[in-house]
Amino acid sequence: MEYRKIKDEDNDGGTLSNDIENLRGIGFSGVASVSNVPQREQAKWKRKTVVTVALTFLTSSQAILIVWSKRAGKYEYSVTTANFLVETLKCALSLAALARIWKSEGVTEDNRLSTTLDEVIVYPIPALLYLVKNLLQYYIFAYVDAPGYQILKNLNIISTGVLYRIILKKKLSDIQWAAFILLCAGCTTAQLNSRSDHVLQTSLPGWIMAIVMALLSGFAGVYTEAIIKKRPSRNINVQNFWLYIFGMAFNAIAILIQDFDAVMNKGFFHGYSIITTLMILNHALSGIAVSMVMKYADNIVKVYSTSVAMLLTAVVSVFLFGFNLTLAFFLGATVVSVSVYLHSAGKLQR
Amino acid sequence: MEYRKIKDEDNDGGTLSNDIENLRGIGFSGVASVSNVPQREQAKWKRKTVVTVALTFLTSSQAILIVWSKRAGKYEYSVTTANFLVETLKCALSLAALARIWKSEGVTEDNRLSTTLDEVIVYPIPALLYLVKNLLQYYIFAYVDAPGYQILKNLNIISTGVLYRIILKKKLSDIQWAAFILLCAGCTTAQLNSRSDHVLQTSLPGWIMAIVMALLSGFAGVYTEAIIKKRPSRNINVQNFWLYIFGMAFNAIAILIQDFDAVMNKGFFHGYSIITTLMILNHALSGIAVSMVMKYADNIVKVYSTSVAMLLTAVVSVFLFGFNLTLAFFLGATVVSVSVYLHSAGKLQR
Repeated sequence: MEYRKIKDEDNDGGTLSNDIENLRGIGFSGVASVSNVPQREQAKWKRKTVVTVALTFLTSSQAILIVWSKRAGKYEYSVTTANFLVETLKCALSLAALARIWKSEGVTEDNRLSTTLDEVIVYPIPALLYLVKNLLQYYIFAYVDAPGYQILKNLNIISTGVLYRIILKKKLSDIQWAAFILLCAGCTTAQLNSRSDHVLQTSLPGWIMAIVMALLSGFAGVYTEAIIKKRPSRNINVQNFWLYIFGMAFNAIAILIQDFDAVMNKGFFHGYSIITTLMILNHALSGIAVSMVMKYADNIVKVYSTSVAMLLTAVVSVFLFGFNLTLAFFLGATVVSVSVYLHSAGKLQR
Repeated sequence: MEYRKIKDEDNDGGTLSNDIENLRGIGFSGVASVSNVPQREQAKWKRKTVVTVALTFLTSSQAILIVWSKRAGKYEYSVTTANFLVETLKCALSLAALARIWKSEGVTEDNRLSTTLDEVIVYPIPALLYLVKNLLQYYIFAYVDAPGYQILKNLNIISTGVLYRIILKKKLSDIQWAAFILLCAGCTTAQLNSRSDHVLQTSLPGWIMAIVMALLSGFAGVYTEAIIKKRPSRNINVQNFWLYIFGMAFNAIAILIQDFDAVMNKGFFHGYSIITTLMILNHALSGIAVSMVMKYADNIVKVYSTSVAMLLTAVVSVFLFGFNLTLAFFLGATVVSVSVYLHSAGKLQR
């Protein structure tokens, strides 16, 4: 479960966007030819769908790997080295993608790796936000138990929606806001179990920490979208490279602080197994998928995607691990499904 | 808990309506004067609100009386005699209201008590439907336990919506359908407890009976609305009188069949207490409120009203009986609230 937090770290920081991408898209197709407009729109929609579906499947297989690794026994690998490898792998994959593009298209203003201080200065901010959030994570368990924390994490949904509205200044319709509240309620309902009611006894400091953590996580996500969308024509692989390079740096520092002795005595890869390797691979790919969703869709799509992944995971676990689905799960899944429908039915007319 | 079923019996049967009332309302105000239109609309809206609020409060106080009577100990009164008294009281109240109207307005075509076979022939049908449903109620407990039955009763919400659409041919917008599914999911979520999952083990005959009962109950409600709305200018108290007279007749038969010996040996009022009296009074008033909602609003409003009443009851019970609210209750209440909002936000443009 602890491993899960790695996934969060593939988002890093930036400034405001305001649909620059949309404007450019329209501009380009206007210059080219009128008949290209629907084709371009279709291509954009297709790309958005592909990255969203990829994120959904990667996130749910991620959760299944976590269950699998728990069932297989405890692995004594160092979480910080695994996090570092995830960032490194993401960096390597971005560079590989760039190399292919350079070969076919040549180096241009948009896909060159070199950057300006003005562009790169905001990139470490989300990584820093996650660092603070992960630090808080150790303290919150003094106030909330693990199942309670799992429930409180759904506050992320609300904080992402609110910060998306405030920071990116994007509007959701009233129906879409209603859908977003339902998404949060539905996800929480689907996760209810006999011990969930403990969470109502959470003390004030516990609530405050949970809300602060939700805000940090939501802020990091929204900030990443702002960074990536600020330069819509910039190649996503270059943007990813810079996001992940700071991820590597922060995780290297974490290894030095937390696990230096263990790594020195037992080795960097101590306790790694085939499942650990699969998890690292999965986290790297879903990290890249998150970046793609930020580039071609938005944080709202990301939240829906990971919520649907949570439901998929539960259904798949029935077949893989013989889990039982509860009535609460069916009710929560119904509410989430209606929420997905309402989000699309409630689209603002532009 | 058994007593609860009385409430259902204040709905009886009829034919189709198709917004005759709406058409007439527009016709009348058109004839009168243009400036009267908003006033008439406002008066209609006010009346609709008053009867809906009345139904909500009567339904929730009804549930509170049930809890109170359970806490106060078991009462060995006969349920059939209580049901009979509820119908009699409703009849008496309708007659009293009519007497006042006759005094002030005189006897007219619309408020005279005498009727035609054509008008009255459909009135016993809903009462008969409830009789069949109540008979089934005894058998379903062979397949489902009491908490499970409480959960399955929420199928009434869906059956009412579907039959409302099919029989009354009234349209709900897509958003309103989504809201209706949420209402059902939210009410069920709010009632979840540790034993709720048993309901998933319900066998096929149990499911079939639950669905048939939901259809009977929904059909009776929708049919009552059709009867009452078929003659929109007919005074509601006359319509109620005829509905309740058949209620009295059916309950008299029930006394003869089920409780004849007990009534003969121990007396008609054996086991009655102050709470029993209050419950009879409450059931009579909420029965009349249901008829009013059918006349001035519709079955959809009735379902929302009783669902919100369920939530109010739970909140009031916290103060009255020291009940604890569960996390599931808060989540269900959130979903129901969003559903109420969506039902109104999703109104079809006419």
